[in-house]
Amino acid sequence: MKTVSENACFGGVQGVYSHASRATGTDMTFGLFLPEEARDGPVPVLWYLSGLTCTHENAMTKAGAQAWASEQGLALVFPDTSPRGEGVADDEAYDLGKGAGFYVNATEQPWSQHYRMWNYVTEDLPALLFENFALDPERQAITGHSMGGHGALTIAMTLPERFRSVSAFSPICHPTASDWGQKQLGAYLGDDQDAWDAHDSVLLMRERGFDGPMLVDTGTKDQFIDLLMPETLMQAVGQARQQSVIRMQPGYDHSYFFVSSFMEEHVAFHAEALYA
Amino acid sequence: MKTVSENACFGGVQGVYSHASRATGTDMTFGLFLPEEARDGPVPVLWYLSGLTCTHENAMTKAGAQAWASEQGLALVFPDTSPRGEGVADDEAYDLGKGAGFYVNATEQPWSQHYRMWNYVTEDLPALLFENFALDPERQAITGHSMGGHGALTIAMTLPERFRSVSAFSPICHPTASDWGQKQLGAYLGDDQDAWDAHDSVLLMRERGFDGPMLVDTGTKDQFIDLLMPETLMQAVGQARQQSVIRMQPGYDHSYFFVSSFMEEHVAFHAEALYA
Repeated sequence: MKTVSENACFGGVQGVYSHASRATGTDMTFGLFLPEEARDGPVPVLWYLSGLTCTHENAMTKAGAQAWASEQGLALVFPDTSPRGEGVADDEAYDLGKGAGFYVNATEQPWSQHYRMWNYVTEDLPALLFENFALDPERQAITGHSMGGHGALTIAMTLPERFRSVSAFSPICHPTASDWGQKQLGAYLGDDQDAWDAHDSVLLMRERGFDGPMLVDTGTKDQFIDLLMPETLMQAVGQARQQSVIRMQPGYDHSYFFVSSFMEEHVAFHAEALYA
Repeated sequence: MKTVSENACFGGVQGVYSHASRATGTDMTFGLFLPEEARDGPVPVLWYLSGLTCTHENAMTKAGAQAWASEQGLALVFPDTSPRGEGVADDEAYDLGKGAGFYVNATEQPWSQHYRMWNYVTEDLPALLFENFALDPERQAITGHSMGGHGALTIAMTLPERFRSVSAFSPICHPTASDWGQKQLGAYLGDDQDAWDAHDSVLLMRERGFDGPMLVDTGTKDQFIDLLMPETLMQAVGQARQQSVIRMQPGYDHSYFFVSSFMEEHVAFHAEALYA
């Protein structure tokens, strides 16, 4: 692991690190905010998964999350959204290939060699983090934005024993039924749509739900809302009687101006679960 | 109008009054909480519509709302849920007839003579209230529980210029598709289901929505949740991109122990809209 940068931040440290990932077969870069309390021992962790076109850096610099995480004594992890580098397959479209890993393990050519973001986020990076930093694996929560909201919801429902709470900002809710999803799942996982189902929050909610609190915010003026399909998740959450707070925030769009507006409440929501 | 009782309550007055209603053709009884501020001039009003089997009294004594209304300087109105008295049609079932007016104007025999609760709540009682008490008609909000949540949502969507905000506790969401609804709408309005649609929150949400904030809470352990069908309202709210906060509260049931647990947040929600 290599330290790319470390900056004092709200009494703690905002670091950026790179490491050779076994999951992706590439070097990967991630951001990690450690609050002041991490000097004294392991602290709870909130994972933040980013959306299409993002790197480890977007939320780290634009979401304003460190202010609230420092208040609550939480660490924040900001993984990248895809493998990077020469020799890594890509596509001209902004929503496929680099910056668009979709939090799946690709099985199809030319993606399967490096696009294994599910394993990266759920196995490879956690192992590195808990070995090298003062983080408490027993107290983890997860959130994300857009494609990262999709990642947060699907990962939390698949690994409920790992995460005490889950939230999302304008998540892609039902990728098996949306142009944001069908394209990527088809490319990465192939034409057999049975393989897609494990990566659809609506289907996972119908099948198993999440054994803990869930918070989802979407802006009513989100320019991508027809691709996000919040109504499908809302119906599934209602049908599943899932403990939840689902909010449609008036006038907000898909940007980090939206995410940052509600970050304090999301961090407080997770802190309540992590310190319960 | 006759004063049935007046009790000092949180610095204001909890009154119970009766009056001859033109809408129902009967004497009607209602509760009214006036906060201390009403001595100095008109105060904003939060309507609370009760559920099946309730009178004006249930929420007045069990919801704990006066504590929060006094903090916010709001009046609370607690109408009855049906006409009462000898000569008023009734049914042996708890969910039809007395205590089960469903906030509609009945058109069918034997109900049509007195069961005109829509007009009572939207015309008759408001006229009386604003003539006799220090209440501000320009600042009204509405909430309710179960059948009263149905009433609050349908009335707010039908009269959006009147209400700045709407909320509901475990509302009957989709009565045209539920046994809590089909039975009553059929009895009161007849077999022509077109007449039912104006009294269905899901259909009204699809058709017009509400031009203001909406808050809905339902308990995940609500024993009547299959009749309430919260998932149908959630889907419609999502599809309509309705400004909203929809919550599934873990472990709560259909009782006033649930209602009272979240009353503070509902009153604060309405106060924010009424004082904006």
